[in-house]
Amino acid sequence: MSSGLTQGRQMAKLNQDSGSFERADCLALDAKDPLGHFREYFDLPAGLIYCNGNSLGPLPRKAARIAQRVVGQEWKAGLTQSWNQAGWFHLPQTLGAKLAQLLGAREDEVVMTDGVSVNLFKLLHLALSLNPGRHVILMDGTAFPTDSYTAQGVVAALGLPYRVDFRTTEDLLDGLSDQVAVVCLSDIHYKTGRVSDMAAMTEAAHSVGALTLWDLCHSAGVFPLALNACGADLATGCTYKYLNGGPGSPGYVFVARRHQNQSAQPLWGWWGHASPFAFDATYTPAPGIQQLLVGTQPILSMAVAEAGIDLALRAEMGLVRQKSCALGNLFIAQVQAHCRDADFTLACPEEDAQRGSQVAFRHPRGYEIIRALADLGVIGDFRAPDVVRFGLAPLFLRYADVWDAAQQLLHVLDAGLWQKAEYRQRSAVT
Amino acid sequence: MSSGLTQGRQMAKLNQDSGSFERADCLALDAKDPLGHFREYFDLPAGLIYCNGNSLGPLPRKAARIAQRVVGQEWKAGLTQSWNQAGWFHLPQTLGAKLAQLLGAREDEVVMTDGVSVNLFKLLHLALSLNPGRHVILMDGTAFPTDSYTAQGVVAALGLPYRVDFRTTEDLLDGLSDQVAVVCLSDIHYKTGRVSDMAAMTEAAHSVGALTLWDLCHSAGVFPLALNACGADLATGCTYKYLNGGPGSPGYVFVARRHQNQSAQPLWGWWGHASPFAFDATYTPAPGIQQLLVGTQPILSMAVAEAGIDLALRAEMGLVRQKSCALGNLFIAQVQAHCRDADFTLACPEEDAQRGSQVAFRHPRGYEIIRALADLGVIGDFRAPDVVRFGLAPLFLRYADVWDAAQQLLHVLDAGLWQKAEYRQRSAVT
Repeated sequence: MSSGLTQGRQMAKLNQDSGSFERADCLALDAKDPLGHFREYFDLPAGLIYCNGNSLGPLPRKAARIAQRVVGQEWKAGLTQSWNQAGWFHLPQTLGAKLAQLLGAREDEVVMTDGVSVNLFKLLHLALSLNPGRHVILMDGTAFPTDSYTAQGVVAALGLPYRVDFRTTEDLLDGLSDQVAVVCLSDIHYKTGRVSDMAAMTEAAHSVGALTLWDLCHSAGVFPLALNACGADLATGCTYKYLNGGPGSPGYVFVARRHQNQSAQPLWGWWGHASPFAFDATYTPAPGIQQLLVGTQPILSMAVAEAGIDLALRAEMGLVRQKSCALGNLFIAQVQAHCRDADFTLACPEEDAQRGSQVAFRHPRGYEIIRALADLGVIGDFRAPDVVRFGLAPLFLRYADVWDAAQQLLHVLDAGLWQKAEYRQRSAVT
Repeated sequence: MSSGLTQGRQMAKLNQDSGSFERADCLALDAKDPLGHFREYFDLPAGLIYCNGNSLGPLPRKAARIAQRVVGQEWKAGLTQSWNQAGWFHLPQTLGAKLAQLLGAREDEVVMTDGVSVNLFKLLHLALSLNPGRHVILMDGTAFPTDSYTAQGVVAALGLPYRVDFRTTEDLLDGLSDQVAVVCLSDIHYKTGRVSDMAAMTEAAHSVGALTLWDLCHSAGVFPLALNACGADLATGCTYKYLNGGPGSPGYVFVARRHQNQSAQPLWGWWGHASPFAFDATYTPAPGIQQLLVGTQPILSMAVAEAGIDLALRAEMGLVRQKSCALGNLFIAQVQAHCRDADFTLACPEEDAQRGSQVAFRHPRGYEIIRALADLGVIGDFRAPDVVRFGLAPLFLRYADVWDAAQQLLHVLDAGLWQKAEYRQRSAVT
C-alpha cells in the first residue's frame, strides 16, 4: 500500500501538494508516524472519525480507570481520609504543576481550578488591581463569547471610568494606549483557528504598560506554549478540549511569579486562605498562586483529567505541532483541490504557521453540513452563524482519518446531502 | 435480643433516658426502623462507623453506576453529542429542580452549579444590587469561614461605604437596621449544629427591609426545609455532605422567583446568557434562575451527585428528622451518663429541636481524640480549636452504630488513648 516515498518526502509533498494525495500516501505516513502509538491510549468509538477534540476530547483509557479508583476506592473506602491520603486537597497544585510544564511556566505559577469563565473574572479583576489608574480592558471582541461577557460583567460592576474596548483580531493593537490596563486575547482563535504571536503581542502590550491575559483553551495540548519566554502576565484555559480531561473538567490559572502576592483576586474563599484549617475569622490571602483558589473543587472531574494531561506531557510537543500542521494542510488541500461548491470557503489561515490544530470553513448551511457529515461517521462542529470546524488532534487522528473526513465532506457537498429537511432542526447545543 | 418494648415506647425512653439504653434496645429500634432499608443503597466500608457524613457523605451504590455510564458510554461513545442526548447541558436545571423539592422551593428557583464560595459571591452581590442604598452585610461571624471570607472580599472590592457587620449567632439580630442590605446566616451551624429559626429570622430581617441569604450546607438532606414558606430570599449549599453527592460535587443556588430578573449577578458567562449558542457579542442575561450559571460545569462530578440527591428525595423527611433527633439524643445521653472526663463538654444544643443532625463536644485535645477514635473504626471530625463533631446521618447509620460510637468514645476518654504521641502530628486537612 505504501507509495514508496520516505516519510520526509511525503511530508514535503503533503505540505506542498497534498491535494493530489491518495489514501495510500496517508497510510504510509501513518505507518511511520512517531505519534501513532498514542491512539491506543484512547478508547475511541469504532467507525467514527472524531474531528471534534477541540470541543470535547475523547476518553483516555486511563481516565476510566481513574474514575473507578476515585469512586470505588478513594471515595468508598477512604472517605474523608482521602483528602490527605489520596492527595485530593492538593490536586489543584499537583495538576497545576503538570500543566505548567505544558504552558512553559513554573510549577508554582499554575493551579487547576474552577472553570474558564470564573477564572477570567478573577484574572481581569487581578489585572485591574495590578495596574491601578488604568481603566480599559482591551479585547478581541470576536473571541469566544464568555471572554467578552466576563469583561462586560467586570466593568458593569466596577462602573465608570472602567470600560471594555472591543476590537477585531486584526486591529486589536490599534487600541493600545496608556489607559489600557490589560489586553485579553486568545492565542488561538476558537472559530478561525488563527494563531496570535504571543511574544509580539505581549511586547506591544508591555510597551504601553499594559498586561496580557491569555485564553489558552484552543492551544494547550497541541501547540508549544512558552508563557514565560513570551513574558506573558496572566492566562487561563480549559482541560476538556485538546487535553482530553473529560466533559467540563476544571480549568487552570497562570499568574507569573512577579505578579503574585501583589494583590488579591476578589473571590475570597477558604481554599485561597493562608491557613484553610485554622478557621480564622479574617481572610488572609494565601501566598503565591494558591490565592487563586476559592472553594472545594469537584474532585472526581479533576482527578480524571490527569489521564489526558499526562498523555499531553508524554508527547513531544514539537512532533505534535508538526503533525497538527500536516493534518490541516492535507484537509485544506483536499477540499481546495476537489470542492465544487463555491459557497464553501476557507475560514482559517491557509498558512500553517498561522493556524492552530483546527481547520474552519464558511458555508451558509454549515449547520446542516455538520449534521449530514455526522450521519456518515465524521464529527465536526458548527459555530454560528456559518462556520464549520474540524479539530485535528494529532494524538488520536491518523492521516488516513483526515483524508477520509475530507472525502466525506466533499461527498456531502457534491451530492447536496445537507439539503435534507431532517438536518434543519436545531438541537439545544450546537 | 429485643427488650420487648414497642418502638414507640423505646423512642420515648430514648428521648427521656437513653443514658440507660443498652445495645439490645438499639437493635430493637433498628429492626423496626422505617428508614433501615436505605442503608443498603450505600456501599459502606466494612467495620467502620462513619459519623462524618456531614463532611463527605458515603458512596451511594448507584453513584458508581452513574460514573461508569458517564465515562464508559456518554463520554466514550456519545462524545459531544452527549451535551444534548445525555442531557449534560441541562443538568444544572434538571438537578436544580430535584433539589428544589428538598428545599421547599419551586423548580425554577434552583440550579445546581459551581461551589458554595463562588455561589455566595454571586448571591451577596445580587443581594446588594436588589437592595440599593444599603451598604451593610450582616453576618454570623462564627459561621463556616468561607462565608465570611467571601463577604470580606465583596466589600473589599466595592469599597466604602460597603461593610460587613460580624456578630455571633446569639446577637445577630441586634445588628438589624435600615442600613442592612442582607443578613447572611446558616440554618444549621457547621460547628455547634445549632438550628436557626428560619421563619423568625427572615421575618425579623424583612421587618427592617433586609434580605436573607441562607447557607444550607448542614441541613439539606437531613432537615425539612421550607424556603418559600419561610419567605427566604436567597440560598446556597453544597451537595457532598448529607446529600452524598461525592467529593466536591457542585453546589446549588436558590433565588426566590420575586427576585429573579431584577438584577444580574456579576459573573457573566456564556451559560448565563439568554442564548448561549447564538454567540452574540453582547451579554444578555438569561431569564430566571439560569442567569446564576456562569460557565461549563464539571459534568462527571455533577451527574454522579444525582444518586445521593435521589435517595434524599425518596426518604420521607419527617422520618429522617425524627431519627436524626433520636440518634443525637442517644449519643449525648450516653456520654452524659458515663463520661468521667470533666474537660469533655457538650458544644451543641441538648434540646433536639435546636440541634441539626450532628452532635458536638469540646475538649482541649479534640484533635487527638478524633484520631484515636479513627483507629478504633469510628470516624468523626475535628474543627479548630477544640470541637469534635459527629455527623449522624439517618439514611445509613443505625441506632446500634451510634451506641457503639458512643461506647468507643467513652473508652478513648476513660483509657486516655488520645494521649499517645502519634496522634499529635497534624495532617494537611483536619
